[in-house]
Amino acid sequence: MSVNRIAHTGLAAKSRSAAEAAALIHDGMTVGMSGFTGSGYPKAVPLALADRITTAHAAGDSFRVKIWTGASTGPELDGALAKADGIEYRLPYNSDPIARERINAGQMHYFDMHLSQVAPMAWQGFLGELDVAVVEVTGITADGDLIPSASVGNNKTWIDRAKGVILEVNSWQNPALEGMHDIYYGTALPPHRQPIPLIRADQRIGQPTFRCDPAKVIAVVETDAPDRNAPFSPPDATAHAIAGHLLDFLSHEVRQGRLPASLLPLQSGVGNIANAVLTGLIDAPFHDMVAYTEVIQDGMLDLLDSGKLRMASATAFSLSPEAATRLNADMGRYRDKMLLRPQEISNHPELVRRLGCIAMNGLIEADIYGNVNSTHLMGSRIQNGIGGSGDFARNAYLSIFMTPSTAKGGKISAIVPHCSHVDHINQDVQVIVTEQGIADLRGLAPRQRATQIIARCAHPDYRPMLADYYARAQKGSFGLQSPMLPGEAFAWHQRYMETGTMRG
Amino acid sequence: MSVNRIAHTGLAAKSRSAAEAAALIHDGMTVGMSGFTGSGYPKAVPLALADRITTAHAAGDSFRVKIWTGASTGPELDGALAKADGIEYRLPYNSDPIARERINAGQMHYFDMHLSQVAPMAWQGFLGELDVAVVEVTGITADGDLIPSASVGNNKTWIDRAKGVILEVNSWQNPALEGMHDIYYGTALPPHRQPIPLIRADQRIGQPTFRCDPAKVIAVVETDAPDRNAPFSPPDATAHAIAGHLLDFLSHEVRQGRLPASLLPLQSGVGNIANAVLTGLIDAPFHDMVAYTEVIQDGMLDLLDSGKLRMASATAFSLSPEAATRLNADMGRYRDKMLLRPQEISNHPELVRRLGCIAMNGLIEADIYGNVNSTHLMGSRIQNGIGGSGDFARNAYLSIFMTPSTAKGGKISAIVPHCSHVDHINQDVQVIVTEQGIADLRGLAPRQRATQIIARCAHPDYRPMLADYYARAQKGSFGLQSPMLPGEAFAWHQRYMETGTMRG
Repeated sequence: MSVNRIAHTGLAAKSRSAAEAAALIHDGMTVGMSGFTGSGYPKAVPLALADRITTAHAAGDSFRVKIWTGASTGPELDGALAKADGIEYRLPYNSDPIARERINAGQMHYFDMHLSQVAPMAWQGFLGELDVAVVEVTGITADGDLIPSASVGNNKTWIDRAKGVILEVNSWQNPALEGMHDIYYGTALPPHRQPIPLIRADQRIGQPTFRCDPAKVIAVVETDAPDRNAPFSPPDATAHAIAGHLLDFLSHEVRQGRLPASLLPLQSGVGNIANAVLTGLIDAPFHDMVAYTEVIQDGMLDLLDSGKLRMASATAFSLSPEAATRLNADMGRYRDKMLLRPQEISNHPELVRRLGCIAMNGLIEADIYGNVNSTHLMGSRIQNGIGGSGDFARNAYLSIFMTPSTAKGGKISAIVPHCSHVDHINQDVQVIVTEQGIADLRGLAPRQRATQIIARCAHPDYRPMLADYYARAQKGSFGLQSPMLPGEAFAWHQRYMETGTMRG
Repeated sequence: MSVNRIAHTGLAAKSRSAAEAAALIHDGMTVGMSGFTGSGYPKAVPLALADRITTAHAAGDSFRVKIWTGASTGPELDGALAKADGIEYRLPYNSDPIARERINAGQMHYFDMHLSQVAPMAWQGFLGELDVAVVEVTGITADGDLIPSASVGNNKTWIDRAKGVILEVNSWQNPALEGMHDIYYGTALPPHRQPIPLIRADQRIGQPTFRCDPAKVIAVVETDAPDRNAPFSPPDATAHAIAGHLLDFLSHEVRQGRLPASLLPLQSGVGNIANAVLTGLIDAPFHDMVAYTEVIQDGMLDLLDSGKLRMASATAFSLSPEAATRLNADMGRYRDKMLLRPQEISNHPELVRRLGCIAMNGLIEADIYGNVNSTHLMGSRIQNGIGGSGDFARNAYLSIFMTPSTAKGGKISAIVPHCSHVDHINQDVQVIVTEQGIADLRGLAPRQRATQIIARCAHPDYRPMLADYYARAQKGSFGLQSPMLPGEAFAWHQRYMETGTMRG
C-alpha cells in the first residue's frame, strides 16, 4: 500500500511511527491540524501526542499546545487531546464533547472564528506563528504533491505557513478522491489581492493537489483508519414540518419571480433539520440545482442520487458511516459531481455574494426582532461555534434560519424576548422557520418583525408570554425602535437556570 | 444657468415647479430619494411634498410615504417630512433629529440596513416596488445622461428601478463635479454576477454619469441650494488621546511587518474622533496612503492637502460648510484625487476584503468580550443606524472601533458587562480604542479579551465595577466560554434608566 500511496522516494524515506512524529511536537507549540466535521483529520499523531502529554503530566511536567484546525474533528484528535488536558487554546470551531466541557469549565481558551477568515488572518500574522502542521492526505505523488483527503479545510495554509509538516497518509481514504479537489493558489495579502475568478459553483479555479516543499516535511506516518462522523438520526415530525414550510416558501419565491426555477446555490448547515430540507427537495419542483456549501452531508448525497442536484461544491464530507460507505463504494461516479475546496474559498464572502447563495442555518435562540444566537446556551455556555454561518448569512441572496420552536422537551423556547448572545444581527436574518410556521422578515422594521416572529414562529405555550413582554416593552422602553425592558430581558434565561424551565 | 445645466431639450421641456413635481407623489407611495450624509439630497421637492402632506392632514386625509435614500440627508428632506408626519417607513439610515424622535416614539418604521445591501435587495425584489425616484443631479447632458451631485448613494438603482423619475438640477453644485464619479453598471442578479474588476482604490471601473431613459422622467426641478452638513466641533483632548493610541498602534503594526508603510486603504466613520485620527495622520510616518471609504469628511480633505493621502474613494462628501466652500473653490484640483461611487461599490464586501481596508468606526457601547452596539441607546432607542460599519468591519483587514470610555459626563460607561444590543459580534471587532488605551483583541478567546478590555479601555471609575462583575460571572455563569450573569447583565442600563447614571 505504501508504495502506491507514497510515490515520492524522499518522502517515503521519512516514514515514522506516530510516536516518533508526535515526539517532534513540544510544550507550548502551535499545531495546525487537518480536519473538518469528522473528515480528513489526522488519526494517529494526535493520539500519540495525547499519550506523550499524559506521560509528561504524570511526571509533573507542563505540556499543552495550541490547536488550529479546519473546523470540528474526531474523537482521536479533539477528544483525546482534551481528555489529556493538552489543549491550551483552540480555534476555529469545536463540537467535541470533551473539549466542550473543558472550554465551558474555563480550562481551555477557545477562539470561535468565522471559518472563511482563518486562513487570511493566519497569513496576516494576526494569530501568531505556526510551528507544526499535521495533515492527513490520501497520498503523495511522485513529484511530492499531496493528494488531499476527505476535507480540505485550512490545509493549504497550514502546509504553507508551518515550520515543519507531518503528513498522515491514510490508506482508508479512497484513492479515487484524487482529482476531486480544487486547491486555489491565487490568494495573496493586500495590496496584491485579485478577484477570485469563480462565477459558477462547478467551476475549477485551482489544482487537484497541495504543493509542499519536501524539505519541510519532518515525518510521514501511515494510517488506515476511518473518518468518524456521527450517525444521523432520521428526521422527526418537527424537522419535516420545518422543511415543509421552507419548501413552500421557496416555491412561492419561484412563482413570484424572485428565485429562478433551479433556485440558487444552496448552502446548508448540518443536522437533522438540514437533512430533512435536502430530502424534501428530492420531491420539490426544482431541477438542476447546485450547492455551494461547507459540507456534503447525507441528504446532499441523496439529492445528488435523485438527479435533482447537479453538483455540490464544499470543503468537506460530513457523512454518516452508512453514507460514507456508499460514497466510498461509488467514488468514481460521484467524483464528477463534487468539488472540495479550501474553506477560505467555500465560505468566501466574495463568492457567497456573487453566486447568490440560499443560506440555511440552524440556531439556538432568536429574539423577537430576529437577532440570532447560534452558539451560547444561556449566553455563556458554548455549544459548537459560529462556524461558517456568518460567512453565508451576511452575504447570501437569501438568509434563512431554522429551528424547532422549543428545546429540552418544551422547557426552553427558541424564541425569546432578548437573545442572551448574538451571532447574527437582525440585518442578517431574513427568514425564520420553526415547525409552527415561517416569518418572512425581508424589508420589515423591528416592530414589524416582532409581530411576525411571535405570531408565526413561537410555540403556542410561549406565545402569550412573548406577546405580554412585547406589549409591556412598548410602554416601558427607553425608545421604541426595538422596544426592550432591560430589567427582564433575560428573565426567561434566569428562570431556566434557577428552575430548569423557561415557563413562567 | 438652466441652459448650461439641462442640455437635453426633451428634459428641459419637463421643467416644473417643486410643487408641481410633488403633486406627482401620492399617499402610500414608495419614494427613492438621493442623499448621503447631508450631500446631494433633493432640496425642493421633499419640502413641497411636506407642504402637500400637511395640507392633506389638515383636511383629515391620510398621506404618508415610504422613503428610501442613500443614508442620512438634510433637514429639508427627513426633517421636513418627519415634522409633517409624512413618513410611514424609512430605510436605510437616518440621523435627522426629528425623524429620530418619531422613530423612537413608535410613529415611524425604520429599517436600519447594511448600506452595501440596499441596492441588491431592491433589485432582488425584497423591498417591494419603487414608485418614484427623486434625485438631485449637477446637470443633464445633451444626450440625457445625468451628472451626479455631491453623493452617489443608491441613485443608479433608484433611477433604474422607479416607475417615474423626478430630477432636481441643483446649480449650487459645482459643475466641475463632472467627471469625478465612477458609476459601475456591471452589477447583475445571480446567477449572472461577475467579479467586480476593481483591484485598486483609485481605479475607474464605470462611467461618469447615470443613464436614464428620458421617457421615465416625469419632472425636472431647478434648484440652487447648498448641501447642509453639520459643522464639526474641533477634536477635544479625548479625541486626540484616542487618535494618539491608534496611530501608535498602526506604527507598531508597520514595524512588525503586518502593515505596509503606506498602510492599506483607510475606511473612516464620521465625527470628531475620526477627524482627529485623520488629522493625526498628517504628522504620522505613513506616505502615499489611499482611502476606500463611505464619505470624505474634513479631515480627509486636510490629509489630501498634506500630500500624505494620495487619493480617496467614497460615495459622498460629508463636509462642514467651511470645508465645502474650500472644496468648491478648488474643485478642479481635488477632482483628480477623489472618486465617488455607488454605495453598493464603496461598501461592497468583495472589495473591502480584496483591498484589505483598515476599518475605523465608532460605537455606543462595547461589552467586556468586545461585542459592539453602535446603534441602540439602552438597547431600544436608536441613535442613527448601522450604516456601512458592518460592511467594513466584517471584511476589513483590520477592524478597529473607537470611543470615549464614558458618555454624558461620566454617567454612562462605554464598556459594559453586556451589550444591550449587538451590531458587531466579537468576531468582527479586533481592536478597541478609548482615551484610556488600546485593546488588541486579535486571536484572543473571550476570557482573554475581557481581561484586556477591562484593563485597557474602561474608565477608571468603572473598572472596579467591571472587574467585580467579571469575577462573579466566572463563578456563577452557566458556562465559562463567555461568563455572564443574566440576572444582572443589564443592571447598569437599568440603573441609568432609573437614576440617570450607570454608577453604582
